[in-house]
Amino acid sequence: MKVAVYRKEHFNAAHRLYNPAWSHEKNDEIFGKCNNPSFHGHNYELIVKITGETNKDTGYVIDMKELSDLVKECILRKFDHKNLNLDCEEFKNLNPTAENIAVVIYNILRPKIDKKYELKITLYETERNFVEYPAD
Amino acid sequence: MKVAVYRKEHFNAAHRLYNPAWSHEKNDEIFGKCNNPSFHGHNYELIVKITGETNKDTGYVIDMKELSDLVKECILRKFDHKNLNLDCEEFKNLNPTAENIAVVIYNILRPKIDKKYELKITLYETERNFVEYPAD
Amino acid sequence: MKVAVYRKEHFNAAHRLYNPAWSHEKNDEIFGKCNNPSFHGHNYELIVKITGETNKDTGYVIDMKELSDLVKECILRKFDHKNLNLDCEEFKNLNPTAENIAVVIYNILRPKIDKKYELKITLYETERNFVEYPAD
Amino acid sequence: MKVAVYRKEHFNAAHRLYNPAWSHEKNDEIFGKCNNPSFHGHNYELIVKITGETNKDTGYVIDMKELSDLVKECILRKFDHKNLNLDCEEFKNLNPTAENIAVVIYNILRPKIDKKYELKITLYETERNFVEYPAD
Amino acid sequence: MKVAVYRKEHFNAAHRLYNPAWSHEKNDEIFGKCNNPSFHGHNYELIVKITGETNKDTGYVIDMKELSDLVKECILRKFDHKNLNLDCEEFKNLNPTAENIAVVIYNILRPKIDKKYELKITLYETERNFVEYPAD
Amino acid sequence: MKVAVYRKEHFNAAHRLYNPAWSHEKNDEIFGKCNNPSFHGHNYELIVKITGETNKDTGYVIDMKELSDLVKECILRKFDHKNLNLDCEEFKNLNPTAENIAVVIYNILRPKIDKKYELKITLYETERNFVEYPAD
Repeated sequence: MKVAVYRKEHFNAAHRLYNPAWSHEKNDEIFGKCNNPSFHGHNYELIVKITGETNKDTGYVIDMKELSDLVKECILRKFDHKNLNLDCEEFKNLNPTAENIAVVIYNILRPKIDKKYELKITLYETERNFVEYPAD
Repeated sequence: MKVAVYRKEHFNAAHRLYNPAWSHEKNDEIFGKCNNPSFHGHNYELIVKITGETNKDTGYVIDMKELSDLVKECILRKFDHKNLNLDCEEFKNLNPTAENIAVVIYNILRPKIDKKYELKITLYETERNFVEYPAD
Repeated sequence: MKVAVYRKEHFNAAHRLYNPAWSHEKNDEIFGKCNNPSFHGHNYELIVKITGETNKDTGYVIDMKELSDLVKECILRKFDHKNLNLDCEEFKNLNPTAENIAVVIYNILRPKIDKKYELKITLYETERNFVEYPAD
Repeated sequence: MKVAVYRKEHFNAAHRLYNPAWSHEKNDEIFGKCNNPSFHGHNYELIVKITGETNKDTGYVIDMKELSDLVKECILRKFDHKNLNLDCEEFKNLNPTAENIAVVIYNILRPKIDKKYELKITLYETERNFVEYPAD
Repeated sequence: MKVAVYRKEHFNAAHRLYNPAWSHEKNDEIFGKCNNPSFHGHNYELIVKITGETNKDTGYVIDMKELSDLVKECILRKFDHKNLNLDCEEFKNLNPTAENIAVVIYNILRPKIDKKYELKITLYETERNFVEYPAD
Repeated sequence: MKVAVYRKEHFNAAHRLYNPAWSHEKNDEIFGKCNNPSFHGHNYELIVKITGETNKDTGYVIDMKELSDLVKECILRKFDHKNLNLDCEEFKNLNPTAENIAVVIYNILRPKIDKKYELKITLYETERNFVEYPAD
């Protein structure tokens, strides 16, 4: 049986939700106050889950310091204290909903983590709204 | 791969645990201080998990505002600031344990949520006791 | 300069807010859903703060185990898994608002704690509503 | 002795820290990544503390529902899902640091709350950075 | 469909991470400051998850009081306020990483819990590092 | 009126409570399981409070990045992943109770922080036991 390890990191970012193919009225109807054209923001809490076998020599599934460094290098440096819509090419043509941010983070990390490990991303946009990808 | 979204809500309620088919002694033996005939209460934290495909136009699995409104309308209006045993017909013949409350909430919400979504309920009775239905 | 030590405990209880001198209509107007005649309930988080000099031999202001035992004996045994209105003589003629519960707890503990210590009570009724007595 | 009551609310906003009287280099030196010209954002947690006498008829220092409504009307409607620099006249000429936001919130609420009550604002910008005004 | 119930407990312990087959240099390289020979420590939060059918008579999957007593008797009595490396025979020849501690706890509890129940262990070493066994 | 700013940091350490002037029996009687000779440990949460005037040019009471760096340099480098009794000269002749650790941290930081600021330390040994120095 495998063990899962979780590492929690956080970043602060601004964003705006809207679909450029839609009218301003339709965007307001669907996204409400999240469509504020001058942006709003969040403290995002990010949990990275890695599942695998425990290494007999170390007792680790994966070195959590290395995992934390990888997340800082690949995710926090990109998104922390940024405007997701304006500063991040990943969201130039993709609405920065929590769902899409979680998928983007997964897609950035997946090729950098050995295939023998499973990967799952949980992202808290607020304490009351959060998402998981891929879902169980 | 699908995405899961979670919405957290809360309600405060009184309840008493007992089985009317049993003697008072047996109820005390099984339910201890939870069998206080004049009731005790909890701040219940409720997490509703919806799993599905992300909509390409919105970037949402489901509109969290609509999900929150549905939970408020169907669950909080029924249970918040209520005595589960006395005020709620769902528990007239069902012991309001956390397990049973979670199943009742699932059964109320399931027909109101599109079948294309999976649904899971997590209910915190206290910070140290919580339940999930259906279990993974 | 003195040191303050804090001990956090919790209890679960049912209550109802109303003033017996008022009509049912007036009680509803003032207390809203908190006036449900069949009660609702909360997980109360209680923080007891003791301020004093650090004892040179122990490095303690007060033994936290003894403080915890005192709170369990004098407060939790009285209020945990109880209906504050029906089961607790302290609230027979006193509305069990968070403010009044905090004052009652203070008045129970104050004579049992050496006068050389200052005492303050913080009581969380929910994560979003809490009170402190005596106020700074 | 008086009782203090606390009400916790939250809002999400974007902001940027900079001093328009300074060069871009000096702003970067002082405010670092908080000076991102396209903004970043936070989930702000706001705690409003009111200190006063408990009313004998209600057992309340102040009606928490009315206090919550006041904060929603005067503070959240202004700042929630807004860009503090662009959308809020209070910060047209004032850097939206946590310190300044707390003082602005205090100055908005103070005239709307009866003088018999003391008022204090605590504002969490992140879980690890928070401020209080006026300080003890 | 089954219900899962969760019970959260905690214990405080000292530990040191190292592999006695390796040189001090290699241990430092792999385990960094966790290899301090005079130990460091943690507040471990332990969540025990039991999955099964709800008993019709009680409305419980399992009596949470009995589950809590079992965890206190079998796990907390062994590990709370202990040095995992020096005081606990389970870690005489096993590096007390969070992964290994979770597996040890699972192996202690599994034979004491009826086979009709599934068991899962989640262990928080810090708020930001935690593990789960067996993984989903 | 002044503003207070708070910065939260954390460190993990091992310790043992005892008084070398006492017999082993007396130490056991006073300190119980905290007197385990092979040590136990905690995740300490440290909150540093600075009170002062807000600087008109920055909108800061103090630069939180500088405060965080100071705490990391002077406190975390000393105590994180250490055995307080064995590795830290501050506790060679001082029992490392939460009270004493908070006073030691205050005494280290006070000379390094401008006299125009007030300083207060809050230290969580566990979620349920914490201390403050100097007390209000």
